Amino acid sequence: MPNPTPKSWLPSANTPHCDLPLQNLPYCAFQTETGPHLAIGIGDSILDLHTLSHTTLLPEETRAACRAPYLNTLMEQGRPAALRERLTELLAETATPVDIAKIKPHLRPIKDIRFAKPVNIPNYTDFYASLHHATNVGKLFRPDQPLLPNYKYIPIGYHGRASSIVLSGTPITRPDGQIKLNTFGPTQQLDYELEVAAYIATGNHLGHPIPIAEAEQHLFGITLLNDWSARDIQSWEYQPLGPFLSKSFATTISPWVVPMEALAPYRVPLAPRPTSDPAPLPYLASNAPSAIDLHLEVFLTTQSMRASSLPPHQLSSANLRDLYWSFPQLVAHHTSNGCNLLPGDLLASGTISGPTEGSQGSLLEITQRGATPLTLLNGETRTFLQDGDEVILRGYCEREGLPRIGLGECRGTVTVKKSP
Amino acid sequence: MPNPTPKSWLPSANTPHCDLPLQNLPYCAFQTETGPHLAIGIGDSILDLHTLSHTTLLPEETRAACRAPYLNTLMEQGRPAALRERLTELLAETATPVDIAKIKPHLRPIKDIRFAKPVNIPNYTDFYASLHHATNVGKLFRPDQPLLPNYKYIPIGYHGRASSIVLSGTPITRPDGQIKLNTFGPTQQLDYELEVAAYIATGNHLGHPIPIAEAEQHLFGITLLNDWSARDIQSWEYQPLGPFLSKSFATTISPWVVPMEALAPYRVPLAPRPTSDPAPLPYLASNAPSAIDLHLEVFLTTQSMRASSLPPHQLSSANLRDLYWSFPQLVAHHTSNGCNLLPGDLLASGTISGPTEGSQGSLLEITQRGATPLTLLNGETRTFLQDGDEVILRGYCEREGLPRIGLGECRGTVTVKKSP
Repeated sequence: MPNPTPKSWLPSANTPHCDLPLQNLPYCAFQTETGPHLAIGIGDSILDLHTLSHTTLLPEETRAACRAPYLNTLMEQGRPAALRERLTELLAETATPVDIAKIKPHLRPIKDIRFAKPVNIPNYTDFYASLHHATNVGKLFRPDQPLLPNYKYIPIGYHGRASSIVLSGTPITRPDGQIKLNTFGPTQQLDYELEVAAYIATGNHLGHPIPIAEAEQHLFGITLLNDWSARDIQSWEYQPLGPFLSKSFATTISPWVVPMEALAPYRVPLAPRPTSDPAPLPYLASNAPSAIDLHLEVFLTTQSMRASSLPPHQLSSANLRDLYWSFPQLVAHHTSNGCNLLPGDLLASGTISGPTEGSQGSLLEITQRGATPLTLLNGETRTFLQDGDEVILRGYCEREGLPRIGLGECRGTVTVKKSP
Repeated sequence: MPNPTPKSWLPSANTPHCDLPLQNLPYCAFQTETGPHLAIGIGDSILDLHTLSHTTLLPEETRAACRAPYLNTLMEQGRPAALRERLTELLAETATPVDIAKIKPHLRPIKDIRFAKPVNIPNYTDFYASLHHATNVGKLFRPDQPLLPNYKYIPIGYHGRASSIVLSGTPITRPDGQIKLNTFGPTQQLDYELEVAAYIATGNHLGHPIPIAEAEQHLFGITLLNDWSARDIQSWEYQPLGPFLSKSFATTISPWVVPMEALAPYRVPLAPRPTSDPAPLPYLASNAPSAIDLHLEVFLTTQSMRASSLPPHQLSSANLRDLYWSFPQLVAHHTSNGCNLLPGDLLASGTISGPTEGSQGSLLEITQRGATPLTLLNGETRTFLQDGDEVILRGYCEREGLPRIGLGECRGTVTVKKSP
């Protein structure tokens, strides 16, 4: 019987709570002098797929795609099972000394690289799949009817702005905008939103919906996403066509793309709906374990906290399994009208909030739209984000007896707008 | 004194009401056995820029861009003034016999080519810039308060779906969707929307808004656009994040990209706002002639009308100059939060309706959401579009003493969904 959790010959991959064990092997890209290279993460290192593709170690049919600047070419081919299998062999402690010697020159410590955007994202869609978030927000605006009548029937979503998606670590410029009637200036209600997003592998042709039973196979992997939001701009602009400039100034993604294969041990059924809720319509109905048992955490550090070397303040903790709609349902719904998804398209969950106190995924919810300021560990208070504040999202799958699968971090620091 | 309206040596370019005189020279792309070629339109022909770029006739710095499959490379360089000037010289009746002889092999009759998508559209934004449309629609849903309070302060817009933009002539499959509670099936309220859209030339960097005074220079050219809409899907899904699947099944563009230079003689100031309206905020204020005096027409033919060889039924006629917000204002607003526009991004006006009866740009308005069916020339009636209906948008600038600048046609026929 094969070892269910084989180890790597790279010691750092086997340490407890390592985000990047042999069972994860998330994709990323990093900067080199001659342009971005694709890579995978293992332990404290990345393995350069670009340089490795010039050897005979990788499956021949994947080598050209491994030399592309983005993952899209790999994604077009569907989930690259042969590549993942080969990389797992090469990095496992059972690898031959010859192969290990060949691999080693292609490893680089993560601390020495600068990440690049792993995917050229053609289209970005943001959903609203957390019932708890929708309810929390609804209560602020419609105490008597927090949830709109369509919520439990239809996965609500909107087209997001693909061009302003930035990589973790990119400074977030506080945006200007219209804030009620004759006021234009920097937003005073800058917020974050804790989200997870899925990248599409192969897409579908226009006019050809993806059935729910096939939706899972169109998912390539997942990433953390911070959907920065300017609440004052949003509340003034969003009627009747939805959020626009309140979101499009920046959206941050983490550098890693965690493959669906790595998440397999953590797949669980969606929580059963209360009997008072409508059953999903047939095109959205599935008994597959479509949810993901993924822990999520949000932290905040302020300039003053960093100056005093204080640890980040934890704002919330939630779990992706608490979503009302799963990623396969989002894919089936998105394409149900024939809309074509492309390889590398990004589908985000919407803000992830849980059912309990301490699990709200945005300051809007935590501070009740600023009405109840939050007190940080050092006594500072916040209603919304201040200049210099850094928001850190973390995510990982972890369960006794299973290797931990980490999504890494998604970071962004608010900076003041420079004068032109 | 130079002739203000010089003629071409190509006789078809000089006929009255020709959409493509020497003064237009719109860009397009067409299919060849070795992939799409860029071209410009002149008279009854297109001039192949790709094959022409292998000669020394075109400015050297534009030749590589003329061999790209899409206009984006040209767009990145800003408005290609030198290319336009050279093409005008080469096609004018004052061209040398030697040049004319060199040009002729690169001309192909429009009737013999198949168009391709001229631009790889990275991002698509749809606005709501017609006050008359917003008022007409508002009246249907909120008779006491047709216009929302934000309308006259802020250009309303939303991110559209770029992947499902198709070229004129592509059949439009009637989409399935959720229509209130437990109903999923083909839309019963399929509609069109008459729009004009602008392509972006050079973009801006994230965090660096485009000031209103510079916005015009970021416009490359315009095209006709039909924003097909499923009204029943839309009314069920659009709260609170805006239209999504009710629009993303297809958006049709015309094959031509009419350069801003060709429109110059038809630029006019925006209609003065009534004194009771708020003045635009400084970041949107401009005295430049930012509107375009462009006639727009919508026609419908049904299967039965075509079988009887009846001419198309005119549904409406409007003028682009009646928009409440101009394209330069839309650019300035879109980037006011720092959002980055990319070369080839498409910014659509939203449905264009005029102030008078007969100028409504959608069936939603014409039939009052289906309450007052429309009777066609042959006695057929319509509330919304039926299978086999073809919608034709046309647009042109025309004024006594000036050459007519045509946008050509944007066509789409509704087809029934095939069983999977």
